[in-house]
Amino acid sequence: MDVTELQAAYRRVRCATEGLCEPLQAEDYVVQSMTEASPVKWHLAHTSWFFETFILRPHSPGYRVLDEQYEFLFNSYYNAVGPQFSRSHRGLLTRPTVANVFAYREHVDEHMLTLLETTQATAETDIGRLVTLGLHHEQQHQELILTDLKHLLGQNPLHPVYRETPSGAGSATRPESGDDFRSGAVPALTWQEQAGGLSEVGHAAGGFAFDNEKPRHQVFVAPFTMASRLITCGEYLEFMSAGGYQEPEFWLSEGWDAVRRNGWRAPLYWEEHDSEWHLFTLNGSRRIRAEEPVCHVSYFEADAFARWARVRLPTEQEWEVAAEPLARDGNFVENLNWHPVPLDAAHPDQSVATGDERPPSHSGQLRQMFGDVWEWTASPYTSYPGYRTPPGALGEYNAKFMCNQLVLRGGSCATPRDHIRSTYRNFFHPQARWQFAGIRLAKES
Amino acid sequence: MDVTELQAAYRRVRCATEGLCEPLQAEDYVVQSMTEASPVKWHLAHTSWFFETFILRPHSPGYRVLDEQYEFLFNSYYNAVGPQFSRSHRGLLTRPTVANVFAYREHVDEHMLTLLETTQATAETDIGRLVTLGLHHEQQHQELILTDLKHLLGQNPLHPVYRETPSGAGSATRPESGDDFRSGAVPALTWQEQAGGLSEVGHAAGGFAFDNEKPRHQVFVAPFTMASRLITCGEYLEFMSAGGYQEPEFWLSEGWDAVRRNGWRAPLYWEEHDSEWHLFTLNGSRRIRAEEPVCHVSYFEADAFARWARVRLPTEQEWEVAAEPLARDGNFVENLNWHPVPLDAAHPDQSVATGDERPPSHSGQLRQMFGDVWEWTASPYTSYPGYRTPPGALGEYNAKFMCNQLVLRGGSCATPRDHIRSTYRNFFHPQARWQFAGIRLAKES
Amino acid sequence: MDVTELQAAYRRVRCATEGLCEPLQAEDYVVQSMTEASPVKWHLAHTSWFFETFILRPHSPGYRVLDEQYEFLFNSYYNAVGPQFSRSHRGLLTRPTVANVFAYREHVDEHMLTLLETTQATAETDIGRLVTLGLHHEQQHQELILTDLKHLLGQNPLHPVYRETPSGAGSATRPESGDDFRSGAVPALTWQEQAGGLSEVGHAAGGFAFDNEKPRHQVFVAPFTMASRLITCGEYLEFMSAGGYQEPEFWLSEGWDAVRRNGWRAPLYWEEHDSEWHLFTLNGSRRIRAEEPVCHVSYFEADAFARWARVRLPTEQEWEVAAEPLARDGNFVENLNWHPVPLDAAHPDQSVATGDERPPSHSGQLRQMFGDVWEWTASPYTSYPGYRTPPGALGEYNAKFMCNQLVLRGGSCATPRDHIRSTYRNFFHPQARWQFAGIRLAKES
Amino acid sequence: MDVTELQAAYRRVRCATEGLCEPLQAEDYVVQSMTEASPVKWHLAHTSWFFETFILRPHSPGYRVLDEQYEFLFNSYYNAVGPQFSRSHRGLLTRPTVANVFAYREHVDEHMLTLLETTQATAETDIGRLVTLGLHHEQQHQELILTDLKHLLGQNPLHPVYRETPSGAGSATRPESGDDFRSGAVPALTWQEQAGGLSEVGHAAGGFAFDNEKPRHQVFVAPFTMASRLITCGEYLEFMSAGGYQEPEFWLSEGWDAVRRNGWRAPLYWEEHDSEWHLFTLNGSRRIRAEEPVCHVSYFEADAFARWARVRLPTEQEWEVAAEPLARDGNFVENLNWHPVPLDAAHPDQSVATGDERPPSHSGQLRQMFGDVWEWTASPYTSYPGYRTPPGALGEYNAKFMCNQLVLRGGSCATPRDHIRSTYRNFFHPQARWQFAGIRLAKES
Repeated sequence: MDVTELQAAYRRVRCATEGLCEPLQAEDYVVQSMTEASPVKWHLAHTSWFFETFILRPHSPGYRVLDEQYEFLFNSYYNAVGPQFSRSHRGLLTRPTVANVFAYREHVDEHMLTLLETTQATAETDIGRLVTLGLHHEQQHQELILTDLKHLLGQNPLHPVYRETPSGAGSATRPESGDDFRSGAVPALTWQEQAGGLSEVGHAAGGFAFDNEKPRHQVFVAPFTMASRLITCGEYLEFMSAGGYQEPEFWLSEGWDAVRRNGWRAPLYWEEHDSEWHLFTLNGSRRIRAEEPVCHVSYFEADAFARWARVRLPTEQEWEVAAEPLARDGNFVENLNWHPVPLDAAHPDQSVATGDERPPSHSGQLRQMFGDVWEWTASPYTSYPGYRTPPGALGEYNAKFMCNQLVLRGGSCATPRDHIRSTYRNFFHPQARWQFAGIRLAKES
Repeated sequence: MDVTELQAAYRRVRCATEGLCEPLQAEDYVVQSMTEASPVKWHLAHTSWFFETFILRPHSPGYRVLDEQYEFLFNSYYNAVGPQFSRSHRGLLTRPTVANVFAYREHVDEHMLTLLETTQATAETDIGRLVTLGLHHEQQHQELILTDLKHLLGQNPLHPVYRETPSGAGSATRPESGDDFRSGAVPALTWQEQAGGLSEVGHAAGGFAFDNEKPRHQVFVAPFTMASRLITCGEYLEFMSAGGYQEPEFWLSEGWDAVRRNGWRAPLYWEEHDSEWHLFTLNGSRRIRAEEPVCHVSYFEADAFARWARVRLPTEQEWEVAAEPLARDGNFVENLNWHPVPLDAAHPDQSVATGDERPPSHSGQLRQMFGDVWEWTASPYTSYPGYRTPPGALGEYNAKFMCNQLVLRGGSCATPRDHIRSTYRNFFHPQARWQFAGIRLAKES
Repeated sequence: MDVTELQAAYRRVRCATEGLCEPLQAEDYVVQSMTEASPVKWHLAHTSWFFETFILRPHSPGYRVLDEQYEFLFNSYYNAVGPQFSRSHRGLLTRPTVANVFAYREHVDEHMLTLLETTQATAETDIGRLVTLGLHHEQQHQELILTDLKHLLGQNPLHPVYRETPSGAGSATRPESGDDFRSGAVPALTWQEQAGGLSEVGHAAGGFAFDNEKPRHQVFVAPFTMASRLITCGEYLEFMSAGGYQEPEFWLSEGWDAVRRNGWRAPLYWEEHDSEWHLFTLNGSRRIRAEEPVCHVSYFEADAFARWARVRLPTEQEWEVAAEPLARDGNFVENLNWHPVPLDAAHPDQSVATGDERPPSHSGQLRQMFGDVWEWTASPYTSYPGYRTPPGALGEYNAKFMCNQLVLRGGSCATPRDHIRSTYRNFFHPQARWQFAGIRLAKES
Repeated sequence: MDVTELQAAYRRVRCATEGLCEPLQAEDYVVQSMTEASPVKWHLAHTSWFFETFILRPHSPGYRVLDEQYEFLFNSYYNAVGPQFSRSHRGLLTRPTVANVFAYREHVDEHMLTLLETTQATAETDIGRLVTLGLHHEQQHQELILTDLKHLLGQNPLHPVYRETPSGAGSATRPESGDDFRSGAVPALTWQEQAGGLSEVGHAAGGFAFDNEKPRHQVFVAPFTMASRLITCGEYLEFMSAGGYQEPEFWLSEGWDAVRRNGWRAPLYWEEHDSEWHLFTLNGSRRIRAEEPVCHVSYFEADAFARWARVRLPTEQEWEVAAEPLARDGNFVENLNWHPVPLDAAHPDQSVATGDERPPSHSGQLRQMFGDVWEWTASPYTSYPGYRTPPGALGEYNAKFMCNQLVLRGGSCATPRDHIRSTYRNFFHPQARWQFAGIRLAKES
């Protein structure tokens, strides 16, 4: 990437973030619905802070910050940079206003583009590498903007609609009534044999990857089989009908505690009205469709479902070995569904070109590996053998969270298409439900 | 009051509420800083809900509500009306937006004014009495808008200014440096003998009063003496210097627990910078002035200060007996100070006419009895002898809170002038600090 | 009281404490069932600590403590004495053992009796006054030993019996089946007019009283009427059947919170088996008897019951004015019932002489005023007009708890007979249920 | 093992449990110091419940339980058996008494020995396999008795001594002053190269192992190096002096939260007096010795220490591969030290014969691999590839805890010698500190 391409990439990603905010009212930017979620305004500011802190301050001589207090206010968790405003109180900051934050973005963008111009930075320079990191960081926050906003709106009894699905996009998946799908249009789940053996996983040289995807290393993977597609709501309803949420035998001990403590009896955003399950989505509330992938389940629920089905979740190594040959296509944020879609409807005509020469995943035996929902794996999030924490503040980006979290793979309907890859490791605590996370099964050969 | 006067009063009070919001950005209306405080937007809606629920729905045939869900969303605590949206989650409601809420106010106002017109309601009719109650209710929320907003802004490290004090108002009280006052410009505190004896307290017939001020009844009050003025910051600093926050001997047991649990070492909104105490106020942050009344103390702190001074707080009966002869003048919200002011500066030229023929309180021996700060009394909030809970939902207005709270008297710098009277009983939990509450001392004769 | 009588009183009270422990196993002495309750062992040690700290250390030259650490371990809450072992962790102290604690008692007793002998202390000397205080203090802990122990045993699914009621004592009150009582053997509740007026309450000179009963002072009490007896379980069941625990309208706001938070649906120690209510008592579990006084209710429940009955609880002044002329007889700890008894059975032949020349309360119009259950009053616990906190550590005995508690009057079935008087003020938080506390109603004349 | 050997093993293990209780007073058996720990009495009963529930009830026709309620009271967490008495309230059960519980043990023992006799059970029969499991289960609780008891006594300001170390045992390790060791008598820590490669881990056929050690399976382990010995207190003090507890950079994010929330500034049981660190041990309080292995650290502390030292903790696979060739000797519970001992002192004359023909671990390059302290590994506790949860209630023994815990290896000074093996996987939450857990380092080759 030369400097022009880098500038274009910068503009495109920054602009995409703001595009997500178009349907919002000023009020929607401010509120924090729980400690784990942040206000949209905070995401907008923090991603700018990232460029300011790691690029403009050290690399742009004479750069003047817009407000000295932003360093403290919008630092997420980088102790090496300095103290941080309390994470659980981010929603108290009615000032700076939304307009102030957009001005902050503009200020940073202007200086960033100038800096790229001045230094003629390419992707291979130090600055270029930091810019690329900053853009992937921003894409992560794009997904969080959607999930955090959904969590906020989802607690409002008015069930506000974020955005109507644009005409055309995914419209084939929107019958008048969910009943249309009950006939079982989704392809049967089949088990795909995988050879395993001594394999390599992790990011090899070339292209961007986060530190936690490295180094590429050998692992021994026993032969296994993988489900051909994601678990659907219809299948999940069977689990529920079979007493899934009433029987401790399917659950991890801490999972069962979570069920009882939180009164879980269905995935997040499911509501029962007159014995019929409804769903809150970013494009409104509606009846559940049997064929759509189940979503917004915790690891505990994914694991309990697998135990009930007498199988298990894949390990992240199994997932990666199986995914590596596949093209990275699927239902991503660009599809404008903001929700997983039933299998057939997902990929009929791949409207967004990927430039990926590998066979599309849906033409193979394993479908829906990318996009739709993040897939919970059975693997706790740990460092790879030979991993070295990067020096300085950026060493805090990933390494210090390698405890009590599980790895998820494959990206979701809220993930930018060019953000994902087969080595990508997402991670959340086992009780987290507000991400677009779902279930793919595996078992021994 | 005839119908025209009642309409005028309605317009004036409703308009005053909105006037308080002028300096706000949309973001400031939405957030809830703690369970005890509510978003400004919620106050705006709830006060409208009050008129809609208690007047328009039962008394205006054919009235159409703007949104059926508002009944649930903006019900504060009236179980007899129906279930309520969770108090501690009021800040999650980014919708209805601020604009929606102002439209709701307009809708209610239009129908209210029409109803008054149609029914030719005077203050003495059923509807008129409910309107009067609704207006006093709205005035209570005007004060809460200021205190809740202050609590929200006070947690923002940017220390946002609500509004600059208008030129002139209270300007005599704003020297360049607090040091000017250290010489002791404030009049010495003197002890005023009060005869006590068999007395009457509580609201007699005539004019509006809340149910909790009734019935007027006999009490025996032993002779006592009352401090001539409020306790100042300078005096409170002496308490702090004497180890007030370090010595359990001055504190109620639960007060001492609160000190340790919350790490209290000064009143709320005090901050120490370079060994100098500063104050966050609605018109900005600045150095403490020795002469200004101390404010934002809990009952525990007021009580501890009194014990340290080897005296006590007055009972509410003592306070009322002493206040009854005095005119209700003082530093109220109309003075546009939004903060208590030093004694001399408070009343030099009483710019707002009260129409009160009694001698102004400041010309007597007891000063600052009204306005500036609510004065913590030693009296737990209980019902008066012979009290009857009003029938229906309005019986929940006051009666169900008569437990674990203390009575405060006299109004504050955030109270509308025509809202207060000598029989008025405010009440808060002993640990509450976000109200404009201060200290007046008393002792035995 | 001369020195011999004082020594006898000392021996009698100390011995009575140990008598309460006779049925206990070593295990029962150690455990703390909640922060508000203490292990029996702790009570045994703390009451000894009281004599050691306030009498032996300051007044017995050359006194050697048994263990220096006991000063810290067994200090309840006297900051002026020094720091205290955490109240909520008292149950962690398996050492000193029960045997050690009895040895501590013996050590203190020996030195106390010697000191009384040496100084020829009478009740009127400084030491004598402290001894009298210490003995009343010990009697308070005798009651707490029973209530704390009951709370502990009551949580054990084995429902251990503390002690069988001795043959004879209260046996008339123990029919084979509670059904016997359902015919309504208990006298009808009648309303007793009380003149009120300018009255005196509080302890006058002569005899022991706690500081919080002083000074005697004038109050004006409007005419009122008082229920002739306590509320029974049968009457309380009517409240329950009428939806008492389901309807917020009967409850204080904080009371209703407590109902929901704790899932209250009956008094403490009530258990429903096969649609029949059972009771855990110190002498075993059994069916509820309709005629027995209801017990182990919180203030919130007592208040809700009164509101449901469209009356109220008496104030402490009303209670005292009504109780003063009555003899202090009733069902006390010496009756060996350890539970309130139905009215007729309670006093058929007053077996324990009181030496009180006043007419027994049961022969008058107001019955059960003393003993059986502590009666919740509507009065928050505050200091009396003219009250002075005693100097030194003993000033912490009562004064620092005058916040967020309610006054109870009259003593209970766990109170020593010579410990109670009409001016006696007990106090607990409104949610407390583990004391023998019940309900007497009052209303306006 | 024939029936006689099995009976002897049964007697030996059951007897060993009771032997641990010899120094206890009745009071010490009852109390629960935190939810994670249980009263000694509960351990005594639960281990008996295990034999009763899984062997006597199903396999001994006509067996009569001692008390029907014990099934509920002493069930730890087996939902398939039935509901359980609340774990966090185990300390409320003063009844059954200690004597009752010993009678329960006797009852179970009598029937167990009879059953073995009657059925002529050998270790290879179904009953024999369950007995063997029950005995290993009991040994796990033996260790917990010591650690739970230590936690209880450790919170008592009297610092009660569990048992003096018997004369001779470990006496060489007890100099008059810890200073003696400061000269560095402990052998230098060296780094031992390990070849790694495609390896097998997990339990192979033969001998007892828990389900979580199976199946034996292939793993690829990159070459690594392992520290020759455990980290000492002296080395840990260096970490502390270097600001280990003050610098977030060494800590996992959740670890740093734990440091601040709990105020950690040293391992559990360390106390600073006059700038000198002391240690509470089961044989009393004393000064820290620089040479003894550091103990009672959480995973967070072990991990932070490793990061500070610029290395890491071993994975459990690395640990097992390295440990497999070594003899299982070390400082176990039979050594009667109840605390880790300095390296040289630990093994001078191996007084307890192991019957193990492999070279003792201390003569090799890796020392202290077994005994002394459980060694935290970097491996989250998960199931092995191909793992199958055992059917029925015993499937709950291990499998449901495979979340949010870390694996520890090697046994401790509180572990019975014949309980440990190289494939043994212990597991605790990362914040747990009350086990005898310490630190061994590893790094890349």
